[in-house]
Amino acid sequence: MARHTTGRHFLQIPGPTNIPDRVLRAIDMATMDHRSADFAALVGEVLLGLKAVFRTEQSVVIYPASGTGAWEAALVNTLSAGDRILMAETGHFGTLWKSLAEKLGLTVTFLPGDWRHAVNPDEIEAHLTKDTKHDIRAVCIVHNETSTGVVSDIAAIRRAIDKAGHPALLMVDTVSSLASIDYRHDEWGVDVTVASSQKGLMLPPGLSFNAISQKAQRVSASARLPRAYWRWQDMLANNKNGHFPYTPATNLLYGLREALLMLKEEGLENVFKRHARLAQATRRAALGWGLEILCQQPDAYSNSLTAIVLPDGCNADALREIILRRFNMSLGTGLGQVARRVFRIGHLGDFNDLMLAGALAGVEMGLSVAQIPHRKEGLKAALDYLSENT
Amino acid sequence: MARHTTGRHFLQIPGPTNIPDRVLRAIDMATMDHRSADFAALVGEVLLGLKAVFRTEQSVVIYPASGTGAWEAALVNTLSAGDRILMAETGHFGTLWKSLAEKLGLTVTFLPGDWRHAVNPDEIEAHLTKDTKHDIRAVCIVHNETSTGVVSDIAAIRRAIDKAGHPALLMVDTVSSLASIDYRHDEWGVDVTVASSQKGLMLPPGLSFNAISQKAQRVSASARLPRAYWRWQDMLANNKNGHFPYTPATNLLYGLREALLMLKEEGLENVFKRHARLAQATRRAALGWGLEILCQQPDAYSNSLTAIVLPDGCNADALREIILRRFNMSLGTGLGQVARRVFRIGHLGDFNDLMLAGALAGVEMGLSVAQIPHRKEGLKAALDYLSENT
Amino acid sequence: MARHTTGRHFLQIPGPTNIPDRVLRAIDMATMDHRSADFAALVGEVLLGLKAVFRTEQSVVIYPASGTGAWEAALVNTLSAGDRILMAETGHFGTLWKSLAEKLGLTVTFLPGDWRHAVNPDEIEAHLTKDTKHDIRAVCIVHNETSTGVVSDIAAIRRAIDKAGHPALLMVDTVSSLASIDYRHDEWGVDVTVASSQKGLMLPPGLSFNAISQKAQRVSASARLPRAYWRWQDMLANNKNGHFPYTPATNLLYGLREALLMLKEEGLENVFKRHARLAQATRRAALGWGLEILCQQPDAYSNSLTAIVLPDGCNADALREIILRRFNMSLGTGLGQVARRVFRIGHLGDFNDLMLAGALAGVEMGLSVAQIPHRKEGLKAALDYLSENT
Amino acid sequence: MARHTTGRHFLQIPGPTNIPDRVLRAIDMATMDHRSADFAALVGEVLLGLKAVFRTEQSVVIYPASGTGAWEAALVNTLSAGDRILMAETGHFGTLWKSLAEKLGLTVTFLPGDWRHAVNPDEIEAHLTKDTKHDIRAVCIVHNETSTGVVSDIAAIRRAIDKAGHPALLMVDTVSSLASIDYRHDEWGVDVTVASSQKGLMLPPGLSFNAISQKAQRVSASARLPRAYWRWQDMLANNKNGHFPYTPATNLLYGLREALLMLKEEGLENVFKRHARLAQATRRAALGWGLEILCQQPDAYSNSLTAIVLPDGCNADALREIILRRFNMSLGTGLGQVARRVFRIGHLGDFNDLMLAGALAGVEMGLSVAQIPHRKEGLKAALDYLSENT
Repeated sequence: MARHTTGRHFLQIPGPTNIPDRVLRAIDMATMDHRSADFAALVGEVLLGLKAVFRTEQSVVIYPASGTGAWEAALVNTLSAGDRILMAETGHFGTLWKSLAEKLGLTVTFLPGDWRHAVNPDEIEAHLTKDTKHDIRAVCIVHNETSTGVVSDIAAIRRAIDKAGHPALLMVDTVSSLASIDYRHDEWGVDVTVASSQKGLMLPPGLSFNAISQKAQRVSASARLPRAYWRWQDMLANNKNGHFPYTPATNLLYGLREALLMLKEEGLENVFKRHARLAQATRRAALGWGLEILCQQPDAYSNSLTAIVLPDGCNADALREIILRRFNMSLGTGLGQVARRVFRIGHLGDFNDLMLAGALAGVEMGLSVAQIPHRKEGLKAALDYLSENT
Repeated sequence: MARHTTGRHFLQIPGPTNIPDRVLRAIDMATMDHRSADFAALVGEVLLGLKAVFRTEQSVVIYPASGTGAWEAALVNTLSAGDRILMAETGHFGTLWKSLAEKLGLTVTFLPGDWRHAVNPDEIEAHLTKDTKHDIRAVCIVHNETSTGVVSDIAAIRRAIDKAGHPALLMVDTVSSLASIDYRHDEWGVDVTVASSQKGLMLPPGLSFNAISQKAQRVSASARLPRAYWRWQDMLANNKNGHFPYTPATNLLYGLREALLMLKEEGLENVFKRHARLAQATRRAALGWGLEILCQQPDAYSNSLTAIVLPDGCNADALREIILRRFNMSLGTGLGQVARRVFRIGHLGDFNDLMLAGALAGVEMGLSVAQIPHRKEGLKAALDYLSENT
Repeated sequence: MARHTTGRHFLQIPGPTNIPDRVLRAIDMATMDHRSADFAALVGEVLLGLKAVFRTEQSVVIYPASGTGAWEAALVNTLSAGDRILMAETGHFGTLWKSLAEKLGLTVTFLPGDWRHAVNPDEIEAHLTKDTKHDIRAVCIVHNETSTGVVSDIAAIRRAIDKAGHPALLMVDTVSSLASIDYRHDEWGVDVTVASSQKGLMLPPGLSFNAISQKAQRVSASARLPRAYWRWQDMLANNKNGHFPYTPATNLLYGLREALLMLKEEGLENVFKRHARLAQATRRAALGWGLEILCQQPDAYSNSLTAIVLPDGCNADALREIILRRFNMSLGTGLGQVARRVFRIGHLGDFNDLMLAGALAGVEMGLSVAQIPHRKEGLKAALDYLSENT
Repeated sequence: MARHTTGRHFLQIPGPTNIPDRVLRAIDMATMDHRSADFAALVGEVLLGLKAVFRTEQSVVIYPASGTGAWEAALVNTLSAGDRILMAETGHFGTLWKSLAEKLGLTVTFLPGDWRHAVNPDEIEAHLTKDTKHDIRAVCIVHNETSTGVVSDIAAIRRAIDKAGHPALLMVDTVSSLASIDYRHDEWGVDVTVASSQKGLMLPPGLSFNAISQKAQRVSASARLPRAYWRWQDMLANNKNGHFPYTPATNLLYGLREALLMLKEEGLENVFKRHARLAQATRRAALGWGLEILCQQPDAYSNSLTAIVLPDGCNADALREIILRRFNMSLGTGLGQVARRVFRIGHLGDFNDLMLAGALAGVEMGLSVAQIPHRKEGLKAALDYLSENT
């Protein structure tokens, strides 16, 4: 089997996403003095830009870390050993977050899920209502579950918490939704939003974020999990003057400035519409192929990625390998309990119609080469949708 | 009409082509002393690599100039004012070369052409046979006519010249064929091969080349057209030590080294096969759409680009504009006498299956949006071909 | 006061250091699938290269984090709440590490220091000998204190621990010594070496490292500080197959590969010699100026940076500001208790004679402009040394 | 002799000069459709910016070529075979331009020079006054002779021509003066200004320029030297719409846009002052070393470069080789009749105080290592000047 590595690789995993040349070239500038006035100005600029993206007027902090670090930061800043939190099994990443919480010594009530539906706000409400002693300190939800392509309704979950009259913090993972799918930290009353750089923010991995409500900051004062690297207090105090408590990832921050500028140029609303449109085209393709979308709840379809289930007996990783070797495209693997049954198409970040067309063509050809039963109607359906909705 | 400039632009003109990141990053290195030993080593390396690409063991020179400069160099180094040369109307570029020759004071016998067929070797032979006084000093042919997508058979033209027993030099423009379509300077007895950087060589524009036979060098000694910048003699003498008679385009030469390395890694034969395969898929698309290919001679189809004729009454530039605005793709315009009737799809250089799929999807959607009569079978036909021929 | 921002900025802080163009261009490549075989090969390559730099055949792990993260990782993987550790006040960073340990709930015995001398191995031995119950779980030392330019003798500290027959782990911070000053993880019996990317490794900030002895791994099994992000066990298990437990900082890893290649090309021994030579020239300059070097122990002079004390009544930050504005050079500020009295010249990383000459010229001119009492003999002394020792 | 290639190379030849990272990164962007509206906008922008730099409201054309091409363009557009022109032996480049003119079939009256003084306007006036039949068609002068570091007074030469009442065109080579030394195409009544990209314009080599007076354009209409590539008429006609008669060097044009923006940000007057200051410091260094400056006329000292004469019996190329190997710096070689006796220090382009300090330190150390008789007072004198004149 020959390998075609000429031309541009199609990076269609649901993140890290394709980095725009403008962002890569910004990162490719000389490292600067992170204690200088020029750097402080840069920090001020990116913090302001981030607030617009998180839709918050509260605080945002930037970690030189992956998204997992920002998960940890959210928990260690607000909780104490043995605290109970309510999490939900949205999929692989929801499960990983739970596992991380347990490693940190927290007690997790884990709402079971089938990896194919959004979190049910009623269940959240029920659990909280039962918790009359307010043992539950936080509700932690993955907004867009990257392993499944299912989006949970954060505003509804907020309402559920409010209806239960429960004081638990609301923490939300937006790693694969921020700057791709509508998200509103302040309006939805989220206490800690967790995000990272390598998805909708169009950056390489290496930065992650916490957006922090005033309430979360207050709670933080009495939280007793040991913390140093992730400590909001030090970060916020230093950020005030454009500094960090330790050496920040300067060059990724150059890229962040450029990426935030690009998002502003396009306009966040347009960014969301573009993602919605490309996602819809992808789902049309799946239907056209006669393949099942993992998400079984249409109002919870993800605009960042689509996970597609192969017919029984087909190996999704074998398909991915064929597509990689023959068509120079990377697709997302099935993770955890959907391993080998599912592949994922990322359609987020710096992405457009013809990139999607190339990607879907690669999937359609790969299905043929791999002799997976399907109808060759997927790409056509997607293009019909795109050309009718420009 | 909204403009989608997010994501990667699809640059599908038949050159300048997409520059691989490796080549761009090589160009993006600090300029160096062009009189240093390190630079001389680089020059030696690229001259050697170029010989492999031109398939010659004779000389190659590099100009900091566009391909038009290399056209001029070929003529001014070998001819004298008033000399007669035989040229052929392959299309827009064949005509431009003729016009350049006339500006230089040469007398051109111009074989008429319909822009849809290759040069006829028999006509060449007939002309040369008639020229018993050997007034014709050179036969100048465009190998792959970039404006039409028609390839002329240089080996056959060589045989025609030989059959006529004529001493004229054979000069060939390979601007859009070199490193895309099989070409053999020595084996085909070409005296001057003209080429440039921005097509199959996967570089930005700014460099051009003459490959020069021993015979052409001898003829050069008595040629009297004034020349200085283009003077082979000075170039060859300086090149021996890795120098140039004037400041070379250092950073483009860094890119050239990298591009030559990439061609070597893939293997020239594989490069040609890849171009042939992608070109064939493109032609399947044209047929699938029910649109006419400008080239009417299947054995002369170009593997670098395909020019497609729109039905009467349709404006190809309007279609290109729609595709640019809606789908962020640049296609080649119709040039000269085929303006507005034809558009061109470049499928050369650093290019692969899914890039082509995206490009053809863009054309297919554009045809719909522009309401140009066609069958929506082009992309499918192309993909069928690609998936059956990997 | 005019600002000269034309030309190259002289980044002479003791890290982040000047990034070589080769490394920046490597980082400026498209992000790739971090679960692919190609990426796994890259991971294998950098882990192997890192072992050579740490001089270890044991394990090295890479965090997407700053050096502070690697400090935290060293502690949380090996210790339990309330554990006692022995640390030393080498300067600002030694103090910060202590403070971090306390935030994590550890009990620190902090050997006082005057910021001008190396850690005294005899004191270490004395403390450990007294600790007959082996309460002290670890000895944590900064090899090259970045705030002072004083190097402690790790081999001697190892011997001190051995003489005391004490089982404490030995942890060493090499943030500003690795790949600049001779360091030997295995030979010196270090259990955890902490390092980061932005100094001798010639990378932007954003990666940090733990080199881990077998003993440290064993101890880790019973350590009970909560840990998830920093957890060696997950990292080591994933690394075996070229994976990470979470998304790694792909593009910085591209740069790491290139930087390791450059270190190998130069040869670690040559790297150390180059640093020693440039450091010695810098100290000659300080003496030439009649200014005091902060480090008062010549056998502990740092080859990474030199901290210089200004005469009483002079403000080092005012000097730094003048030099920045007039001469476009960043110098290191005095940190903690030497703030305003000291400035630091970084002479580590991708650095050479003429860069140092420019830097020292900038200091010498700055001293004049700022009217700080000094002899104008510093640069001359440095250059005499350099030209006599090439 | 060990080779130090670590750290930044000091490129101190008088061009190509150090390219700012901003310019290199601009060049490192994807090639675009050179027939698109976006590209036409770029062309319009750079042509406007160039006019400001040439200080002209007349026309400027851009060639994908080296400066030698722009020399040729100036001549072939305005002259006919056998025409007489007046040129001056300013040094190596003045001689090369003369040689180029002769290759093109022109008759050159060559004012002899000693390579150490500027062109004497009185001699120009005398020659033109004698030429009562106005056989002399053009006066061609190198503004800043790159081989010697001597600047001729173009305004005075203009006055000399006017005093002689002679209609000859005035053509000026500003290759190493444009954007470094005050120059005024319109005010000084220059007809054709020749320039190129790789010096004060801070770009890699590969672009060159003609600024063209209305008079030169008129003369062009009747000039009969054959021309095609260099033909102003085609260039100007195409430029009107942002096009070129052949494929332009797109990526270098991206760099040109950025370089013009940087010059504008700094302000041309400030650029000239900066060059004057750094040049003066360099001359102080030469005097401090007790070495002779090639230019013997202080009011003609170049602000772009300084050529320094070594004592008899010393080999300047051996010195340059020592400095290259030991100190990683490239200096300019002595060209033509001053070969081996002279070396040249470039101090133009994107350059600042500390870069110069490093460069001069390299020369001073090199002089010691090479055991060339000198006083070690050069660098000190330069720095004294710089610190007193900030």
